[in-house]
Amino acid sequence: MLEVLRKLAKKKAHPPICSAVIVAAGSARRMEGIDKVLAPLGELPVLVHTIYSFQDCPRFDEIVVVTREDLLVEVSRICKDFQLDKVSKVVVGGRERTDSVLAGLREVRPDADLIAIHDGARPLAPQQVLEEVVERAAETGAAAPAIPVTDTVKRAREGLIEETVDRSELWTVQTPQVFEAGLIRAAVEKAAVDGESLTDECGAVERLGMKVSLTTGSKENIKITTPFDLILGEAILEARVRGEL
Amino acid sequence: MLEVLRKLAKKKAHPPICSAVIVAAGSARRMEGIDKVLAPLGELPVLVHTIYSFQDCPRFDEIVVVTREDLLVEVSRICKDFQLDKVSKVVVGGRERTDSVLAGLREVRPDADLIAIHDGARPLAPQQVLEEVVERAAETGAAAPAIPVTDTVKRAREGLIEETVDRSELWTVQTPQVFEAGLIRAAVEKAAVDGESLTDECGAVERLGMKVSLTTGSKENIKITTPFDLILGEAILEARVRGEL
Repeated sequence: MLEVLRKLAKKKAHPPICSAVIVAAGSARRMEGIDKVLAPLGELPVLVHTIYSFQDCPRFDEIVVVTREDLLVEVSRICKDFQLDKVSKVVVGGRERTDSVLAGLREVRPDADLIAIHDGARPLAPQQVLEEVVERAAETGAAAPAIPVTDTVKRAREGLIEETVDRSELWTVQTPQVFEAGLIRAAVEKAAVDGESLTDECGAVERLGMKVSLTTGSKENIKITTPFDLILGEAILEARVRGEL
Repeated sequence: MLEVLRKLAKKKAHPPICSAVIVAAGSARRMEGIDKVLAPLGELPVLVHTIYSFQDCPRFDEIVVVTREDLLVEVSRICKDFQLDKVSKVVVGGRERTDSVLAGLREVRPDADLIAIHDGARPLAPQQVLEEVVERAAETGAAAPAIPVTDTVKRAREGLIEETVDRSELWTVQTPQVFEAGLIRAAVEKAAVDGESLTDECGAVERLGMKVSLTTGSKENIKITTPFDLILGEAILEARVRGEL
């Protein structure tokens, strides 16, 4: 009981300090030469939109951007030019996603209570998605936005359908994925030591046997990986301007 | 050997007769009152785009449209107004998808070699997708277009992640799904008798123990189920006009 009261008192005393690690260190193989995080979307680079969504969200106190060595100067310049003043550091990532996330985690302020990991190539995460996932992570220690799988999914081998997959419990997860700071540090460090290749950070936390809560994702929260995705991104931006989204 | 020669001779003698059943009989619960198949897309109703893609494809000899009773007059008028002269029949479907597909299959010309089943709400299937799936079905008896799952997928229960799903063998299937005529008739009739609820027709064929081949699908081949999908559809159409797709 005393423990609960202490926790409540702590909660009231200060809202959780929340840092975002934005990972923009991937190669751009699928983007026909243009680097996807710097590709123009509504006349601004993709990464500017991405950072802006965290800059705008009062839940976040700090942003660490992880990028490739050859983009370091350009990304630093962008943060300055667009007055993205929550960006505390721009650092160089590694070859694998896990290495890049680790590089970012090391630069997060030590008193952060929660850390959000977000794909640099997801420029259009709605504020509501950010708000909800931070709130849930503050309650449960680990949360990620997701949308239910509505397509018919098949398991196939060598071009032949093996079976229809029961989609009733399937979800597509997005980012930001938000975690209690100690938890995500431990999980990603373990994944790095074990040489595990991650597609998302929930995976690292799941491996520790911890449960991750799902929050409401958004179809607008697309990941830009192909020129087709840029066309969708433009359409979403324009629909927002028209007030349709 | 003689059998093979006979088959080859038959193939040369006439290319397969191919009918399309376009299923547009679903309710429009998710579309905020507008019927999704009649919603405007680039100034034409969604269903006109859908039928046009089959009208334009030389592989198809006939189109049967299945719709709801309350849309029968409107859909028939549309087919006439837009000179969709491959449409041989517009018929009323049933409550379940299986019933609607069956209603369409019954109206297909009896000498059809191949039958394609297509969602009325998929207006933007590229010609190449149609060509390839018909060609493959002519070879193997059953084929469907698909795209690989690239998102991170989780199995979750009551809002908590249970596990990360191995996506390496997962595919999202689309339509048109094309089958040897006798096969799809037998498969869908069995599904109807068994009271099986289908999300796609491959499922009915899989239940007979038959293998379905996957062909190259397209991200453009979207299914319109929400107003958001209409925004994407408009973007795809506009990009096609600009020559970007």
